[in-house]
Amino acid sequence: MTDPSINAERMLRRIRELGQIGRDGEGRLVRLACTDADKAGRDRLVDWLRQADLEVAIDRIGNIFGIWSGGASEDRAPILIGSHIDTVVNAGIYDGCYGVLAGLEVIEAMKAAGVAPARPVAVAAFTNEEGARYVPDMMGSLVHAAGLALDDALAAVGTDGSVLGAELRRIGYAGSREPGFLRPHAYVELHIEQGPVLERAGVPIGAVESLQGISWQRVTIDGVANHAGTTPTAMRRDAGYAAARVVTFLRDRARRPDTRTVATVGCVAFKPNVINIVPSRAVFTVDLRDPDEQRLQAEEALLAAFLRDLAAEEGVSIAAEKLARTEPVTFDRRIVKLVEDAAGRRGLATIRMTSGAGHDAQMIARIAPAGMIFVPSAGGISHNPREHTDDGELVAGAGVLLEVVARLSGEA
Amino acid sequence: MTDPSINAERMLRRIRELGQIGRDGEGRLVRLACTDADKAGRDRLVDWLRQADLEVAIDRIGNIFGIWSGGASEDRAPILIGSHIDTVVNAGIYDGCYGVLAGLEVIEAMKAAGVAPARPVAVAAFTNEEGARYVPDMMGSLVHAAGLALDDALAAVGTDGSVLGAELRRIGYAGSREPGFLRPHAYVELHIEQGPVLERAGVPIGAVESLQGISWQRVTIDGVANHAGTTPTAMRRDAGYAAARVVTFLRDRARRPDTRTVATVGCVAFKPNVINIVPSRAVFTVDLRDPDEQRLQAEEALLAAFLRDLAAEEGVSIAAEKLARTEPVTFDRRIVKLVEDAAGRRGLATIRMTSGAGHDAQMIARIAPAGMIFVPSAGGISHNPREHTDDGELVAGAGVLLEVVARLSGEA
Repeated sequence: MTDPSINAERMLRRIRELGQIGRDGEGRLVRLACTDADKAGRDRLVDWLRQADLEVAIDRIGNIFGIWSGGASEDRAPILIGSHIDTVVNAGIYDGCYGVLAGLEVIEAMKAAGVAPARPVAVAAFTNEEGARYVPDMMGSLVHAAGLALDDALAAVGTDGSVLGAELRRIGYAGSREPGFLRPHAYVELHIEQGPVLERAGVPIGAVESLQGISWQRVTIDGVANHAGTTPTAMRRDAGYAAARVVTFLRDRARRPDTRTVATVGCVAFKPNVINIVPSRAVFTVDLRDPDEQRLQAEEALLAAFLRDLAAEEGVSIAAEKLARTEPVTFDRRIVKLVEDAAGRRGLATIRMTSGAGHDAQMIARIAPAGMIFVPSAGGISHNPREHTDDGELVAGAGVLLEVVARLSGEA
Repeated sequence: MTDPSINAERMLRRIRELGQIGRDGEGRLVRLACTDADKAGRDRLVDWLRQADLEVAIDRIGNIFGIWSGGASEDRAPILIGSHIDTVVNAGIYDGCYGVLAGLEVIEAMKAAGVAPARPVAVAAFTNEEGARYVPDMMGSLVHAAGLALDDALAAVGTDGSVLGAELRRIGYAGSREPGFLRPHAYVELHIEQGPVLERAGVPIGAVESLQGISWQRVTIDGVANHAGTTPTAMRRDAGYAAARVVTFLRDRARRPDTRTVATVGCVAFKPNVINIVPSRAVFTVDLRDPDEQRLQAEEALLAAFLRDLAAEEGVSIAAEKLARTEPVTFDRRIVKLVEDAAGRRGLATIRMTSGAGHDAQMIARIAPAGMIFVPSAGGISHNPREHTDDGELVAGAGVLLEVVARLSGEA
């Protein structure tokens, strides 16, 4: 046995090759879950898994597993490396695919080096992580973790009217294994950061210790439409002004130096939306995130109290509707430490960080110790053809993944 | 000669009758300038002018005049009472029509009482005051005051692609008199307030001493679209948040107790307008008004300075585009005093006020001493079928107009 090491050229070539599968007439990468393009990407992945002599298993929600026993007893829970290969519309080539292909590369490296693990090692590509065609997102990993009933997932109706179960059968990826058949000893996901933190810090590896909880609300403020010239300021019940007060309140909260809360108002609409009429209605969204559930709840409560006071102060009525809510995830401390140690041995600086985006790891964390490794995203850009991570950073991340998986798979 | 007095029943009947002319299939009052509906309203008005034995004159921009010499020398400049009878879409019945029909009533009352004025008295209905079909609004009075060339006005292209001059000919109201042929000694306009001030104050008569200047701008803020979860607050260049800062800045200015400035942000749009993306662009309108030109300019300058500082502070770029700008109008002090005195003699309380909306009076103020009288608008509502003023208030306003006109027309 030699020290295992990543075949950088092969991994990078596969990332680029998979990134060419599913291009539309305009050259955009569009590999939405369970489409013909997704089937083509899945077929290529399965080819690579088979070429690596892995056991290929597909479950009833279409999750693809490549399993390497490595001579370890089949009754030992495996180390699972995972992510996804479905994409958004006009995607970059790294989101998800990097984690799956680096996972495959880790297994091939361990095999090539003659490693004899104490536990099997498997790589997974989960169905419909993006949620761009079917809700909820992270569906395959959620079903795997028994957080969503299989039948409900299969009945999901897409933005195009399609039904996920029928589409899975059509593309030949309605497998026979029961979801959750593979219960991991530990789960590790390598992913591009999709944010600017690592690049700004000049640090190549993020040891992800948590994943933000997300609170989505739609706020509707009803005031009174009035003439912009004839209505004195004190007599206005201006829904648009009240909405602006909420936006600045949220920013004031998120700007405190001691907070990790982020808040975004991304959508807004006024009625009647006329230059010389005081808005009678403002509807806007609030996206609140925090890696700590208590703090997220506290921010939600402070917002609700602010809205109550604002309604009284401005003579408007305010209704907030919950659109989505996920709790934060705290990743396994030991895996976070393993990531730091592995990076340190390779001379790679790390910072501990939270994930602002959702990932399959948050679902698998329900059933097993889980962790994530981030590499930098140039300009923080993702879900965009300009998504980019330097080759050297991609290879460095895969090396850290290799070392963490080698360590975990050697455990009794 | 007896004391002249308004025939309340006749005036109210005419207001209601004119308010039924130009109803569409849904029962909405839609008497847009120079349409068939406008022709029907004009025809009725001309009938009434003729029944009152007035000389009817129509100029080349379609302004209608009913002139009563009253035995006064034709070379004495007349007292002109005016407003308009065109409407917006789905209008109320009082806006404009009240002033014209009260003006006719004033003349009939003076005639009936045997008044022998020192100057002729005329009532005018100006073309296209609303601007709902052709821009600019207040067009007929503006052409009358030589503020817009006749040919440019006639060439105006409507929202429906029609040309104003052709439409005027089609409906038979392209007259032969040169615009401005009648240069008044003084001009008085009676109008519903279209705002809530008189009603809230419980005062029946507004002595309008000024009309706000209006500054319309479109502000475009460009920031950077970023992921709502992965982008730390300090790294955001959030166009939407910057827009909210402008909205609250404007309100803070307008809320100072010593100011008569009003400010409205009526229209807004974010891009990409997605719940979990920091807005890259925010476009919104600013409607600033003040009855004092120096103060309006000062507010414009303060806004421009605020936008400069905000751009630097938030790392966004901000462009402001001028959409429209009118200077404030100060009405003739002596006419304001005449309104107060006439109301006082009738036991009617008055307040001095500014007009938040535009009126033909502001155009005629360019060529003659001008003034306006306001009566209350229920709920401050106008440009809406719910536009309402109580009969008693309409009659009281006409009585004040009568007394002011009687006084002015008696002057040497």
